[in-house]
Amino acid sequence: MSVEARKLQAPDRVPAGTGRVRAVIENVRPQVDGGRFPIKRIVGEAVRVTAEVFADGHDCVVVQLLHRHDGDSRWHAAFMQGLGNDRWQATFAPAALGIARYRVRAWVDHFMTWRRDLQKRHAAGQDLGVEWLRGAALVEAAARHSGSARLAAFAARLCDAGAPTEKRLELAAHPALAALMQTHPDPALVALSDSLEVMVESPRARFSAWYELFPRSTSPDPGRHGTFADLRTRLSYVADMGFDVLYLPPIHPIGITARKGRNNRVQAAPGDPGSPWAIGSAAGGHKAVHPELGTLEDLRAIVSDARALGLEVALDIAFQCSPDHPYVHEHPEWFRKRPDGSIQYAENPPKTYQDIYPFDFESEAWPALWDELLEVVRFWIGQGIRIFRVDNPHTKPFHFWEWLIRTIKQQHPDVIFLSEAFTRPNVMRRLAKTGFSQSYTYFTWRTTKHELVEYLTELAQHDSREYFRPNLWPNTPDILPENLQFTGRTGFMLRVTLAATLGANYGIYGPAFELLEDRAREPGSEEYLDSEKYQQRTWDLDRADSLRAYLAHLNRIRREHPALQADWSLHFHASDNDALLCYSKCTTAGDDCVLCVANLDVHHSQSGWVTLDLDRLGIDAAQPFQVHDLLSSARFLWRGARNFVVLDPSQGPAHLFLLRRQRRSEHDFDYFL
Amino acid sequence: MSVEARKLQAPDRVPAGTGRVRAVIENVRPQVDGGRFPIKRIVGEAVRVTAEVFADGHDCVVVQLLHRHDGDSRWHAAFMQGLGNDRWQATFAPAALGIARYRVRAWVDHFMTWRRDLQKRHAAGQDLGVEWLRGAALVEAAARHSGSARLAAFAARLCDAGAPTEKRLELAAHPALAALMQTHPDPALVALSDSLEVMVESPRARFSAWYELFPRSTSPDPGRHGTFADLRTRLSYVADMGFDVLYLPPIHPIGITARKGRNNRVQAAPGDPGSPWAIGSAAGGHKAVHPELGTLEDLRAIVSDARALGLEVALDIAFQCSPDHPYVHEHPEWFRKRPDGSIQYAENPPKTYQDIYPFDFESEAWPALWDELLEVVRFWIGQGIRIFRVDNPHTKPFHFWEWLIRTIKQQHPDVIFLSEAFTRPNVMRRLAKTGFSQSYTYFTWRTTKHELVEYLTELAQHDSREYFRPNLWPNTPDILPENLQFTGRTGFMLRVTLAATLGANYGIYGPAFELLEDRAREPGSEEYLDSEKYQQRTWDLDRADSLRAYLAHLNRIRREHPALQADWSLHFHASDNDALLCYSKCTTAGDDCVLCVANLDVHHSQSGWVTLDLDRLGIDAAQPFQVHDLLSSARFLWRGARNFVVLDPSQGPAHLFLLRRQRRSEHDFDYFL
Repeated sequence: MSVEARKLQAPDRVPAGTGRVRAVIENVRPQVDGGRFPIKRIVGEAVRVTAEVFADGHDCVVVQLLHRHDGDSRWHAAFMQGLGNDRWQATFAPAALGIARYRVRAWVDHFMTWRRDLQKRHAAGQDLGVEWLRGAALVEAAARHSGSARLAAFAARLCDAGAPTEKRLELAAHPALAALMQTHPDPALVALSDSLEVMVESPRARFSAWYELFPRSTSPDPGRHGTFADLRTRLSYVADMGFDVLYLPPIHPIGITARKGRNNRVQAAPGDPGSPWAIGSAAGGHKAVHPELGTLEDLRAIVSDARALGLEVALDIAFQCSPDHPYVHEHPEWFRKRPDGSIQYAENPPKTYQDIYPFDFESEAWPALWDELLEVVRFWIGQGIRIFRVDNPHTKPFHFWEWLIRTIKQQHPDVIFLSEAFTRPNVMRRLAKTGFSQSYTYFTWRTTKHELVEYLTELAQHDSREYFRPNLWPNTPDILPENLQFTGRTGFMLRVTLAATLGANYGIYGPAFELLEDRAREPGSEEYLDSEKYQQRTWDLDRADSLRAYLAHLNRIRREHPALQADWSLHFHASDNDALLCYSKCTTAGDDCVLCVANLDVHHSQSGWVTLDLDRLGIDAAQPFQVHDLLSSARFLWRGARNFVVLDPSQGPAHLFLLRRQRRSEHDFDYFL
Repeated sequence: MSVEARKLQAPDRVPAGTGRVRAVIENVRPQVDGGRFPIKRIVGEAVRVTAEVFADGHDCVVVQLLHRHDGDSRWHAAFMQGLGNDRWQATFAPAALGIARYRVRAWVDHFMTWRRDLQKRHAAGQDLGVEWLRGAALVEAAARHSGSARLAAFAARLCDAGAPTEKRLELAAHPALAALMQTHPDPALVALSDSLEVMVESPRARFSAWYELFPRSTSPDPGRHGTFADLRTRLSYVADMGFDVLYLPPIHPIGITARKGRNNRVQAAPGDPGSPWAIGSAAGGHKAVHPELGTLEDLRAIVSDARALGLEVALDIAFQCSPDHPYVHEHPEWFRKRPDGSIQYAENPPKTYQDIYPFDFESEAWPALWDELLEVVRFWIGQGIRIFRVDNPHTKPFHFWEWLIRTIKQQHPDVIFLSEAFTRPNVMRRLAKTGFSQSYTYFTWRTTKHELVEYLTELAQHDSREYFRPNLWPNTPDILPENLQFTGRTGFMLRVTLAATLGANYGIYGPAFELLEDRAREPGSEEYLDSEKYQQRTWDLDRADSLRAYLAHLNRIRREHPALQADWSLHFHASDNDALLCYSKCTTAGDDCVLCVANLDVHHSQSGWVTLDLDRLGIDAAQPFQVHDLLSSARFLWRGARNFVVLDPSQGPAHLFLLRRQRRSEHDFDYFL
């Protein structure tokens, strides 16, 4: 809704000061829910703004994009280009973290109208006598208003009846005159749209490779509980694979009451360590470290060492308590009471989770609860943490997240939040709107060509991309999907190759992933057997079949190819075999272009013809081009749209081609000319 | 933007009173530009409201549609039905003219959640002891809050541990209990969307047949200037053809200075009457009647006589002046001055229109100008006029129209405005948004099957239908389209048949239309030769080839068939011949269904197969059905989707079939059972 228009809502009064505004501005894009939520960008990423702008009658309309960072004192103005049919566009790139704003302003421009009509009158052979006076009057008025001596000089020269007509026409068309005239529009004639917001984030919000591990399983000694000291020696293992986010499940004291045993047994056996998501014990709550892991100081050392290796440590935010959490006694008003006086444990009837007490966000004491949870996040930021993976955000109110993230980002605009919500589409999208930088997705279960094309196209092309940044995970501690249970090593390679190339953000839960852990707790289940959620594990990282080297290779390719560092260019190309998935990503400039052809059948060789959208790839249909497989180093010379591909699963799951366009031909040689 | 959400915009303060609201409401539809403009309906026409509504977690959400007329003291509430995937819908029908409002409210409902979970717990064989206490506590609290004795009784019975479980479960599921519980949601938990507006208009805004004529050409005596007295005797001619709006071009005094001659000559010859759109002379301006036509009293008599015949008189609103208009001397500040002191005449360089002075809407004196133009409309309303055709609204500011129409409709919600803007799509749509009840369209120039299907589908199906009501004109005094110049009588029949059946609102400029006037001023021109805009004409209404009877037949069919009285059901069916255009319109209830097959080739017989969308028509593919041509009275028995059609232009331009579904078969006879 434009500002000038809103003032009109009292229809029986003449709206003060707006009646002379003739330009109208509609449909300013991008926007989310009419400006209710910000769009998202990383620093330096372009925002292409479009709008429909027009006025009554035939006069010229001048349209500007205004933008500024929240910290700037004034708006920057850029002229918008007409695309025809009253559509206009301009692009800006927010330069700093935080909130930037943009809006459109427009006005009927009498000088530009006069200039345009002058040409038409002249071409029709009409007398221009009065026209020179009209034009000079416009310029004089602007000169008076702005105090510009240059404009005054222009006005004087336009009046010079002694000058030849051609000279005067040149003068009227002088670009400097137009530029000066448009610097000072009459405020009483200017239409202004409401301003829209961009949340500007750090580059890692758009491009990141996550590695999740359980600190208690980092001990090399079988049976010994891992510590932060063990984790510290594990950092280079993760960094060498090329990951840049190391995500740790909750590191807080674990409750004892109703503790779950191995494989999610209702009764814990002596020595069972419990689930890290059952947070809080006599040793402390959300701001404490589990004593068996180490101390806050140890954690700070890990954060610092990791950062030196290019790794950012991400912590888990799970806003729930074990029955032993200090909050339970200190703030019983934050929990729901049952009629028998006990505290309501978590449940999704008929399922019950007696080891977890959810907060009651409908409590009358919600302001204190919100403040305390904000303090939890602030506490870990104080320890050097800049990335948070938020557990089950969809079971806490949307308004709470919006407030929390907005408040944190006001002081720390570099902080990244990942939303772990596997739920209905509207709920996942709403969480992203409220401010989460990244979101888990349904990729985990999308396996067929049809499913992948449909879903990834939605993520990359739908309007929701303005606020929903996908983060693709082949597995998580909660999900060993069927597509990894019966597909062997090639299956793991396939799923991580898809995740790492379809998504600029992706992650794996390791070492279960690279060590090909594929045993479910029972047939038909997606839960891991001997899940680390309930017990400590020891992993043989040096196993010969580990995917460690493959992951390092994949992440190196991602780092070397900007095409893979953003999502919006994703484009699927046709293939005549449903087992062959073909897609490309290119940079906006087109100087880096990666084409993937994946074999979705991990058991058999598959072959077929792919039909490339050559325009999309910037390839001349008449020229041969080289495709260079970055995984196998093989090179092929292709020509035209249709090309043959054969993929043998024993050789790997996919071609990951770098496109090398033919840049030189005999025409480039001097002697050809 | 929802109300509760907007309060959150100051992110570092805890928003007072909204933190416990867990439901969110998104995407309430229909809406125009986020609620900036009203949608449009006629009295009694349904508004189907949809929204996406959900909350965090697993609790039940209750969603209501609230609606009220501006005059009502309170909102009416209706439960919305879940469509799955967090989508909800409900329908209401505004009952009175004027502005109605609608919005959505929703809340997490603890009683409904408890009731749902109770069943799940019972099915899982869990102990319900505490659950009965929880449920009773919820009902008790509502009973206290509302003072409802009935709720108190329900609460007491839920607590009765002596009752059998099955009885208590029945009690919990009692619909009356749920209804009572949902009458009193806790205001602190209720989310409420912003309210949206419906402009509720009279039925004629959606269904009307317009007839335009020049009063000065109504004299039966060749060469004599027609008068209101002549027009009065012409009313039954128009009414008998079945039209219900009689639209008169401007009836005001015509300027003398720079008057245009016949066929738009720059110099008028003595006796040339001038263009009625050059308004104003010494005899008066926009509130006066041209002396040669008659008096205000005569006009009022016409309005009254016409109404008795079912005809509403529409006047032209052309906000522009001849150089002789009293405003020019009384209010020179409403016009633009040229540097030589003269008043700026209308121009679209290099074209000039010296007989017209446009108002300067950028004048500092705009408030007085707006008020005076409003008074002009009020004046004619005072004479009994309820319909206005607005000339060139796109050359006056959008804000002006929005204010004027809104102000008029506050007192006179039955008044209808037709926007005569043949210009760019965004401009035409914006005018419709500002409040025009109906709009001229590009139909006049759409002739091929592809063009008609594309454009009419847009008008009937695009979101713009919420505010843009098309009015289809085969001709106007300004436009004798090529498609009428070389197509003879059948061409005229074709174009009016299309207009009258594709559009619930349509109009013709007569008697030029029914008398098949097809001579353009010059080859390639769309201007009439001897146009009535610049001269008086005498018409022989009794000519044998007049389309008078055909028009009467067509309008009778429109009146008898509700399917033709609205636009949104328009659906095109496939045909294998591009000269055959096949489409249907049906009532929402499906009890009236008209199928048109038109032959777009007026010179040759055309035949081919049409493939009907039987689901759309509510026809059983296995049963024969009768198609009854309302134009020719022929009847055919069809069966299935594919049917053969042959149309001979000498017999008429189209079949206009009433679909008669086979309603009885042998199964309906007693002895078959």
